[in-house]
Amino acid sequence: MYFRSMTREQLFEQVKKKQSYLCIGLDTDVRKIPVHLHQYDDPVFEFNRQIIEATSEYCIAYKPNLAFYESNGPRGLLSLEKTCKAISNDIFTIADAKRGDIGNTAEMYARTFFEYYNFDSITVAPYMGKDSVLPFFGYKNKWVILLALTSNAGSMDFQLTEVCAPGSVREQKLYQHVIEHAQSWSTPDQLMFVVGATHPELFRDIRKIAKDNFFLVPGIGAQGGNLQEISKAGMNSLCGLIVNSSRQIIYASSGKDFAEKAAIEAKKVQQEMKQLLESLI
Amino acid sequence: MYFRSMTREQLFEQVKKKQSYLCIGLDTDVRKIPVHLHQYDDPVFEFNRQIIEATSEYCIAYKPNLAFYESNGPRGLLSLEKTCKAISNDIFTIADAKRGDIGNTAEMYARTFFEYYNFDSITVAPYMGKDSVLPFFGYKNKWVILLALTSNAGSMDFQLTEVCAPGSVREQKLYQHVIEHAQSWSTPDQLMFVVGATHPELFRDIRKIAKDNFFLVPGIGAQGGNLQEISKAGMNSLCGLIVNSSRQIIYASSGKDFAEKAAIEAKKVQQEMKQLLESLI
Repeated sequence: MYFRSMTREQLFEQVKKKQSYLCIGLDTDVRKIPVHLHQYDDPVFEFNRQIIEATSEYCIAYKPNLAFYESNGPRGLLSLEKTCKAISNDIFTIADAKRGDIGNTAEMYARTFFEYYNFDSITVAPYMGKDSVLPFFGYKNKWVILLALTSNAGSMDFQLTEVCAPGSVREQKLYQHVIEHAQSWSTPDQLMFVVGATHPELFRDIRKIAKDNFFLVPGIGAQGGNLQEISKAGMNSLCGLIVNSSRQIIYASSGKDFAEKAAIEAKKVQQEMKQLLESLI
Repeated sequence: MYFRSMTREQLFEQVKKKQSYLCIGLDTDVRKIPVHLHQYDDPVFEFNRQIIEATSEYCIAYKPNLAFYESNGPRGLLSLEKTCKAISNDIFTIADAKRGDIGNTAEMYARTFFEYYNFDSITVAPYMGKDSVLPFFGYKNKWVILLALTSNAGSMDFQLTEVCAPGSVREQKLYQHVIEHAQSWSTPDQLMFVVGATHPELFRDIRKIAKDNFFLVPGIGAQGGNLQEISKAGMNSLCGLIVNSSRQIIYASSGKDFAEKAAIEAKKVQQEMKQLLESLI
């Protein structure tokens, strides 16, 4: 299984099958996991393995954030490698790496995440432009998820700055320019955008300029975004949303029942999603 | 030596002592190193070790680009860890990682690069704004090197877009807005900017809006930038420039004499820098 990949239609099939568009963020911090796991050789992997086993019926994607694995040095990347292998092939995997570098270096990142770790997708930062993103499109049915409007307070600093883009007559924010411009680099079959749930008032307009692209939506749960609101404004005919929750699910309990409690939290979100999907399915 | 760090004055001392402001980019690709090194347990580290030994008298900084180490999986990060330890403490080290993520995740990246690998500095992408950068400033005398105007063709896509920043009456490009805005986050004692040598005509203006900050300058050598031109336009009273060269130096020869040839190339650049520094020292 060297190549793991998923088409847009296959992703929608998973949404319909599980009646869910939930992504679970595996932001596994070795200092936050239940203490009893420290008896294992690789506590981070054991935590992830149990979370995945308990929650995979409720979600369509897992998203490990690289920062949490890198902070443990080389052995943290071993935990990541094992985690990737523990996720079945019909679940979409997202390397939340937010990489972005010049062309020949971006090629190395593509090799890392698409070949070595065999992810379906990677989050990429747009600041360095086209040649920093193109190498990732060389992998058929693997995906770039480009940062557009993020969920954090710092999204106000530059993403919401007004720009006067060449060839555009109307006023635009930088994130809108990124979304429009990046669509000339690839199709909705390989390009998604990150759109934070903390900007619900902007979802309808963003859907207008990116009708067919999936959006990866962080920011519900701990960060305060509202699932109903963003779903109603952002869904398209193939669902078009992958909504992430990390801390609220994986740290639902700090005891021996952490996986069981995570499943209960994941199921709650999935049940809400099932209702929101009713108009589609 | 848990904490490796360097003040701006200490960095300038190194410039004066070595009469150099050269940074050598350790973009070590396992597919490009001399074949005889493959007999070693860790060929990437052995390559770096010999390059460092041969060139350290000519440079003030080394800059491993993370992509090249990550592409070898967990064992690539082991090569990086050993490489960091092989660089003496009076040489400035740059983790060319171009990270950028929400606050609690940026903290994990700071731990990774400033604590685990013990780098003096890290390159950071500005797109996600203030809270994605602040955690790095919590480490005294360690540095953020913020992407401003990069050396690649893709720098034209967004960095050179005109923006209408709040509170600014004059026309600005996005990279100028980034440079001005980011200066409210920290001082020239912890904040540098990446300014590509492929935009020589802009150096004088950039120095005007960031008088005291060091610039990390990629893009001479393989990418075509001119050392004389950018030095004359960009130098300040503490030099203020760290000019990087990667491929031209480390791949000067693909034979057993690779380290020796790298030293010859590094010395050539250092000799040119010595002349350019004459007005300062």
